[in-house]
Amino acid sequence: MVSKPSRLSTRIDFDADGKQLSYLQLPHSVHRSAYGWLPVPIACVKNGEGPTVLLLSGVHGDEYEGQITLSKLIGDLEPAAVSGRIILLPMANFPAGKAGLRTSPIDGLNLNRVFPGDSDGTPTPALAHYIDSILMPMADYLLDLHSGGSSLMYLPTAILGGAQMTAEVRQTKLELGRVFGAPYSFLFPDGQGGNATTSASAASHGVISIGTEMGGSGTVTPDCLRICEGGVRRVLRHLGVWHGAIGADEAPAVESRMLTAPSWEYFVYAPDDGLFEPRVELGDEVEAGQLAGYMHEPATPGRAPAPVHFEAGGVVICKRIPGRTERGDCLFHLGIDLED
Amino acid sequence: MVSKPSRLSTRIDFDADGKQLSYLQLPHSVHRSAYGWLPVPIACVKNGEGPTVLLLSGVHGDEYEGQITLSKLIGDLEPAAVSGRIILLPMANFPAGKAGLRTSPIDGLNLNRVFPGDSDGTPTPALAHYIDSILMPMADYLLDLHSGGSSLMYLPTAILGGAQMTAEVRQTKLELGRVFGAPYSFLFPDGQGGNATTSASAASHGVISIGTEMGGSGTVTPDCLRICEGGVRRVLRHLGVWHGAIGADEAPAVESRMLTAPSWEYFVYAPDDGLFEPRVELGDEVEAGQLAGYMHEPATPGRAPAPVHFEAGGVVICKRIPGRTERGDCLFHLGIDLED
Amino acid sequence: MVSKPSRLSTRIDFDADGKQLSYLQLPHSVHRSAYGWLPVPIACVKNGEGPTVLLLSGVHGDEYEGQITLSKLIGDLEPAAVSGRIILLPMANFPAGKAGLRTSPIDGLNLNRVFPGDSDGTPTPALAHYIDSILMPMADYLLDLHSGGSSLMYLPTAILGGAQMTAEVRQTKLELGRVFGAPYSFLFPDGQGGNATTSASAASHGVISIGTEMGGSGTVTPDCLRICEGGVRRVLRHLGVWHGAIGADEAPAVESRMLTAPSWEYFVYAPDDGLFEPRVELGDEVEAGQLAGYMHEPATPGRAPAPVHFEAGGVVICKRIPGRTERGDCLFHLGIDLED
Amino acid sequence: MVSKPSRLSTRIDFDADGKQLSYLQLPHSVHRSAYGWLPVPIACVKNGEGPTVLLLSGVHGDEYEGQITLSKLIGDLEPAAVSGRIILLPMANFPAGKAGLRTSPIDGLNLNRVFPGDSDGTPTPALAHYIDSILMPMADYLLDLHSGGSSLMYLPTAILGGAQMTAEVRQTKLELGRVFGAPYSFLFPDGQGGNATTSASAASHGVISIGTEMGGSGTVTPDCLRICEGGVRRVLRHLGVWHGAIGADEAPAVESRMLTAPSWEYFVYAPDDGLFEPRVELGDEVEAGQLAGYMHEPATPGRAPAPVHFEAGGVVICKRIPGRTERGDCLFHLGIDLED
Amino acid sequence: MVSKPSRLSTRIDFDADGKQLSYLQLPHSVHRSAYGWLPVPIACVKNGEGPTVLLLSGVHGDEYEGQITLSKLIGDLEPAAVSGRIILLPMANFPAGKAGLRTSPIDGLNLNRVFPGDSDGTPTPALAHYIDSILMPMADYLLDLHSGGSSLMYLPTAILGGAQMTAEVRQTKLELGRVFGAPYSFLFPDGQGGNATTSASAASHGVISIGTEMGGSGTVTPDCLRICEGGVRRVLRHLGVWHGAIGADEAPAVESRMLTAPSWEYFVYAPDDGLFEPRVELGDEVEAGQLAGYMHEPATPGRAPAPVHFEAGGVVICKRIPGRTERGDCLFHLGIDLED
Amino acid sequence: MVSKPSRLSTRIDFDADGKQLSYLQLPHSVHRSAYGWLPVPIACVKNGEGPTVLLLSGVHGDEYEGQITLSKLIGDLEPAAVSGRIILLPMANFPAGKAGLRTSPIDGLNLNRVFPGDSDGTPTPALAHYIDSILMPMADYLLDLHSGGSSLMYLPTAILGGAQMTAEVRQTKLELGRVFGAPYSFLFPDGQGGNATTSASAASHGVISIGTEMGGSGTVTPDCLRICEGGVRRVLRHLGVWHGAIGADEAPAVESRMLTAPSWEYFVYAPDDGLFEPRVELGDEVEAGQLAGYMHEPATPGRAPAPVHFEAGGVVICKRIPGRTERGDCLFHLGIDLED
Repeated sequence: MVSKPSRLSTRIDFDADGKQLSYLQLPHSVHRSAYGWLPVPIACVKNGEGPTVLLLSGVHGDEYEGQITLSKLIGDLEPAAVSGRIILLPMANFPAGKAGLRTSPIDGLNLNRVFPGDSDGTPTPALAHYIDSILMPMADYLLDLHSGGSSLMYLPTAILGGAQMTAEVRQTKLELGRVFGAPYSFLFPDGQGGNATTSASAASHGVISIGTEMGGSGTVTPDCLRICEGGVRRVLRHLGVWHGAIGADEAPAVESRMLTAPSWEYFVYAPDDGLFEPRVELGDEVEAGQLAGYMHEPATPGRAPAPVHFEAGGVVICKRIPGRTERGDCLFHLGIDLED
Repeated sequence: MVSKPSRLSTRIDFDADGKQLSYLQLPHSVHRSAYGWLPVPIACVKNGEGPTVLLLSGVHGDEYEGQITLSKLIGDLEPAAVSGRIILLPMANFPAGKAGLRTSPIDGLNLNRVFPGDSDGTPTPALAHYIDSILMPMADYLLDLHSGGSSLMYLPTAILGGAQMTAEVRQTKLELGRVFGAPYSFLFPDGQGGNATTSASAASHGVISIGTEMGGSGTVTPDCLRICEGGVRRVLRHLGVWHGAIGADEAPAVESRMLTAPSWEYFVYAPDDGLFEPRVELGDEVEAGQLAGYMHEPATPGRAPAPVHFEAGGVVICKRIPGRTERGDCLFHLGIDLED
Repeated sequence: MVSKPSRLSTRIDFDADGKQLSYLQLPHSVHRSAYGWLPVPIACVKNGEGPTVLLLSGVHGDEYEGQITLSKLIGDLEPAAVSGRIILLPMANFPAGKAGLRTSPIDGLNLNRVFPGDSDGTPTPALAHYIDSILMPMADYLLDLHSGGSSLMYLPTAILGGAQMTAEVRQTKLELGRVFGAPYSFLFPDGQGGNATTSASAASHGVISIGTEMGGSGTVTPDCLRICEGGVRRVLRHLGVWHGAIGADEAPAVESRMLTAPSWEYFVYAPDDGLFEPRVELGDEVEAGQLAGYMHEPATPGRAPAPVHFEAGGVVICKRIPGRTERGDCLFHLGIDLED
Repeated sequence: MVSKPSRLSTRIDFDADGKQLSYLQLPHSVHRSAYGWLPVPIACVKNGEGPTVLLLSGVHGDEYEGQITLSKLIGDLEPAAVSGRIILLPMANFPAGKAGLRTSPIDGLNLNRVFPGDSDGTPTPALAHYIDSILMPMADYLLDLHSGGSSLMYLPTAILGGAQMTAEVRQTKLELGRVFGAPYSFLFPDGQGGNATTSASAASHGVISIGTEMGGSGTVTPDCLRICEGGVRRVLRHLGVWHGAIGADEAPAVESRMLTAPSWEYFVYAPDDGLFEPRVELGDEVEAGQLAGYMHEPATPGRAPAPVHFEAGGVVICKRIPGRTERGDCLFHLGIDLED
Repeated sequence: MVSKPSRLSTRIDFDADGKQLSYLQLPHSVHRSAYGWLPVPIACVKNGEGPTVLLLSGVHGDEYEGQITLSKLIGDLEPAAVSGRIILLPMANFPAGKAGLRTSPIDGLNLNRVFPGDSDGTPTPALAHYIDSILMPMADYLLDLHSGGSSLMYLPTAILGGAQMTAEVRQTKLELGRVFGAPYSFLFPDGQGGNATTSASAASHGVISIGTEMGGSGTVTPDCLRICEGGVRRVLRHLGVWHGAIGADEAPAVESRMLTAPSWEYFVYAPDDGLFEPRVELGDEVEAGQLAGYMHEPATPGRAPAPVHFEAGGVVICKRIPGRTERGDCLFHLGIDLED
Repeated sequence: MVSKPSRLSTRIDFDADGKQLSYLQLPHSVHRSAYGWLPVPIACVKNGEGPTVLLLSGVHGDEYEGQITLSKLIGDLEPAAVSGRIILLPMANFPAGKAGLRTSPIDGLNLNRVFPGDSDGTPTPALAHYIDSILMPMADYLLDLHSGGSSLMYLPTAILGGAQMTAEVRQTKLELGRVFGAPYSFLFPDGQGGNATTSASAASHGVISIGTEMGGSGTVTPDCLRICEGGVRRVLRHLGVWHGAIGADEAPAVESRMLTAPSWEYFVYAPDDGLFEPRVELGDEVEAGQLAGYMHEPATPGRAPAPVHFEAGGVVICKRIPGRTERGDCLFHLGIDLED
């Protein structure tokens, strides 16, 4: 199927050398503004020959380490230190980012679940369509910077993609994970987010992609921010697209513990509605059958708490933040060491 | 002014010995239920002579350590181990608690800002009126268990009230703070929350009150929960109203660092809208003039970050959680050692 | 306390003979209309000497038999057949009536819970204040026509008020109930709706008031409508204020079964959230301890249904309509024969 | 077009003998839960050889007789009494069912208007896609249990589908209708609900389907519930898939009056906005040209009521519940005896 | 791709001579009305042979001159004065028109951005699908009457379409513009609104279309209304489909100034959020580089206003109305004289 | 009644000489910010002796000429040119101003209808209480700058208050109106807005107040802005509190036509819901009985338009903007020359 042309435009000339700061203009004809557009911030820094690297943050609007990392990087990037092209979308789902929400307040959609998008759709799929049809074909590499968002907290982790890739791509990603140098790296089981994510879009265009899960809880953690800054800049240097010196805020690389989850049994979900009391913390090593916590219901005085157990063992790399919980919410997920 | 009679009723007989679990029935005549009432959970355990202690949690619906502490305590309390009367409201603002929100989703009000309430008002002031006119007059002591809620994170702290109290009351509260045994205790500057809080209601009835700020971030922290459980049970034993043995989940008392804030300069507020990057962490000792963090705005690529500084020095006992921030949001507050 | 002047006005001249149809103009200065007013429909028909009767319907916007009864009566009333004055508000809470809701969509309030109102308040209390301070002082009798609304279904019943009245007033009301001639008449236990109802307002002004609960379920029942039409017109004739002939749509009077409920134990409330299956129907005679129904929860397959029992015996005169139910919703209420 | 794989999963093994109770896990990545799923309740009871029968209720969340019928059946089904496989979704549109709404509160969609669904869509079409692509291909028979919902009230009726079917299928459905044994059975005119319904999905997979319209008004009617329970269990026995004994709550079969409506003229719609007064009741026999009722507008005192007439004759099998009505709302529909 | 059949129906017989007034019945099965339809008003006047002209207004619900023009025309049209067929939709997006909003309050969509529509979609695309698949194939000419809506104000302008048309179509449209006789006529740059507009639908069916932008600001301007009435009636007479005499309210034709905009540089957009102070007015001739106005931010006292400049020169034919403005809102657009 | 202390604070020292720019800190403890305050912008410029003038704009958030006038004045004011004290609130109802709405999006209230406010109320009455209890007692003069807002458009008019004032105050106000020098000045009939307005608050403190209605329609009109700037600065010079030179943007004073309205008959209200077509324009002189316009209803094709007439004669100084209109909306108001 031939893709329809995008309705978005921009004043950026992606073929021009130099540093350009502008907006993707996403048409949005509504009651308060008949001829208006939503301004999705974008920067492009290009100089001579070299690879093109696309950096995204704010795909979920309530994930902040990446947004600050790219904002600072946009300030620091000088064309003289670039060989190739770096394209940055520091607040990719702009309406979600302005509102501090995971999903867009305009159409309620999750940008990371609507790829390859729809040029005639509501703002979120129209934006995904632009990224998929215009930006991905320009790119050699994608870095998509996430944190856990308002509902989850992660150990600082580089995300190296799912299981369906060639051995060569896998080796490249593992190498990029080591260069990134976060304390943890993680390979998701197949199918997380389906085929509608940024990484699926990248794969469909032959773009090598990695991501992050840097903290979360809808806040900014100084440590995660420094790890994110260091990792992103190390990867850019490693790819040869940037030659900038090490900055004061970069955390140094550490040897990354390579983790994976072989199946969805490494994820623990709430069995009922209630108030969850966790009994383990991030970084704990747990065993199959171990107590994960209790579901309480203070609204019914005297109701006994219900225990929740782990079905598999591993290290706790992600936990739920909000105490109020509904059946089906993810409470924890685990990782085990990658056999490679 | 003579108070109007409350519209709430309950099947609890506060004068009867034994353990009773029931609801405050708060009339709420609306489209989906013309003759219905909102069920505010309540427990009463009474045995013989002794003081009456009122325990509240869930005054803010998104503060959870207290809700679990009281739910477990309701399960454990046996009349034989009680001398006097313990009244517990584990989810005091019931509609807010069920929704996991600070304020009531029905009338948008903050229960801790509407005392002494209004018997003819919307549900939140009608509930405050019941607490103020029925429960406070029965009580000798109040423990009101808060955490930082969805927007703030506190070090585990006992709250010993504001500055306007007699020397005798102050000494009693400081002693209760020591018995509670949280790592930190804090006396607020005058005027926090005005005269519409639970503690102001308690003071107007001659009830000795203390509170807590146990963690926050809208989550449940296992450590804070254990501190809360230990502190509450120690205070009940100290007051002689309960003789229960020490349980497995109680954290032992530590020597509490007594802190206060002499003025509102110990609180740092956002000077503008944006995305806040903190540069200090909970527990850090800071000096007046020190950098607190930066305001970023990724929506405008290239905009320089704006620094924010502390106006006073002390230990960081509270920080803001959500990264997206508006002018006037509290970013941090400090404490200094109490001179006594 | 001296009442403040009302902010409402009307083109009706209550002292003029003749038939006038117009609106109460309730000022409502909002974004869509800075100088607008809400048009509360009103009719006044006056002729010579005689009592003043105030007729209300649509106090709850989703109760319809009264609204149609008064609309048809407004069409039929001719001054020549009147001796005194009849004032009719066929859609008393106009915004609720237009929306088909129990409570006002503007301020969320229940007109029958805000008397004596507030001239400076939001629209619902401002309207109550007008009724209380302007219309009630003109009136000798009040007929306030209710049905069960969207959440309840009643047997066709005349409501003769609560228990706090003099023997003389009680006798007058019982007589009016017999004249009204609905199959059932009911005296509420004390305190239903508190002191903020139309009937409390009437009592405070020495106005004799009766009401109805004609069907409900948010629908129009042809039988209830005919009973309502007959009853209202018979009462007007009995009071000597109207001399109109019997119309084709009037149901004839029947001997009314006089019922009451001595306490709130005659009301059955949901003990938990769920889907309620009733096991009795309107008009059934039940005994204390009898099964009222079951609470189911299809969302949790395999959960056993929980039985609900009556705490008292009597005839079922009211039942809940919506199947989805929350703890505290009224499921049934009973009546027992009035001993007089 | 090859269907995309579903994003839903379940712990049910549809090929395993025995009784399994669990959930369809419908991924729903939102602000309050990044990795969560919606739990759609499901039960599967299998034993040996025999047909597969799929039972749905709660396709519209405010239709309750079916939800209770299936909840009780799930409790009663024992594998030993089964020959084949019975798959039950007692609350098919789970978010709508929990909210007591016809349509999903998440995406606003009507599950019975989105078949064959979309695996990448919002929750309602994603769920339809699972039913269409996974459950329908397993099934030989479908029973989809509806009531009239919050806006309509039906006589207790079995629905035997639309007109576009082979003579053989028609005979099978008429036979199932007789076995079901409700007082009425009805064949819709072509096109009701278009090709996006459960029955259209069934037809596209060669599955024989029947349905019900058991009462309505958003309530639970004891009589309709007993008719529904009896009918469903009789059909299961008739199909040979279940051998359970007749239970205490089953209404016995009656000879079903077979009805149809040859065209949309048998449906009466509101000609304008207003408050509708019906002049006929369910079960009445009416003639073309007969008065159906009046449109009133109490908001405009003195406005004359407008009559509404039937365009065709027949028996009234369905009426509108809410009094407040808008132009285009269905007020009544009729049936005439099926000529076969 | 073969279009699916529409789910809309109507009682209009488009092949019958005479004047018919009715509704498009747009099925909308929701909680408040399970079997209801939305009534989109339509009129059809046909007599003998001649062209078919389709007239639309209310495609955006807050644009009013066209809605009044067509309402009055529907009243005046007599079959005897018609040669051919005139089909009128005076409130094309009915839900938007009733609410006075640009977009539908039901699905949030802009009817002029969803062509060719979707028969199975929400109401707005289902309606577009009917217009595209049923009405457009009947039509020879389309007049789609817009004003600026709530957010924009236009000089009274006939819109003659975009740049992608044959020379012959262009000449026909220019001639119709001259006949219409508004003070201004305008040809848009390519791509405004994409391929999802009424004019794109018309073009795909070989229908000659023109439109208007008559004032705006969400109000009715008497002058613009008279220009609209005159223009529409002159075009109908010119096309030979109507022979009505000139009415009292028709403004006479003036020589229309033919304008165009060669690129999007003739549109000025807000560079930031704030309160916009315009420094030019409608009808002013401006030059490239001229000051257009200032962005203020009263919320930050002392912040300097930021100037905004024109990037091109021309006559100001459109301005933004709401003072509160966001980055990306259109502030002005210009026209330059068409070289032909 | 002794007023309660305000909960608002500010860093402004009202007794200090010099120019201070800051915020009123209005405590607002909500889910997104437990310890936050709303920042109401304020400026204070003081020098030596002289009167205190309080200037307000943005009392209604969608009235903009005053907000820009005060923002520019804050930029221009230098203490050396001041004799006395000028206090400016350029966006008095800050939440409404940021949202571009008449009323606060937080509590839905109109700041100009809640005086004297309530220190314990929601943000709008808490703010009114601060203005009434802190700022008014400091002031000698009040200038409260309004425009017509989103729903009304005014000729540029100075507002000189209601009828209940002493002859001396009246003469002072008329003189200030002449100094202001707008084309029109207007004295309201008694009772507009009741006793809850800024001008009622001023009167209760003996403060001389005038206001404006400068254009409206929710937009910024360059002419009205220049008139507002000139008038405000002339009044400040006239009062001797400011000695600034005439600026480039000030419109010169003109002789102001002094108007009044003796009764509410000079206001025309919509008699029904519909789409209003005006037949007169601002500035027109009309007579009693003259046609004001027509109510149309395009939703019902063929419905005849209903005429609306003036009940009194005068000059049209205010008109309604939104075409969609409800019964009770003000369509026009008139003025007649003041006899003095």
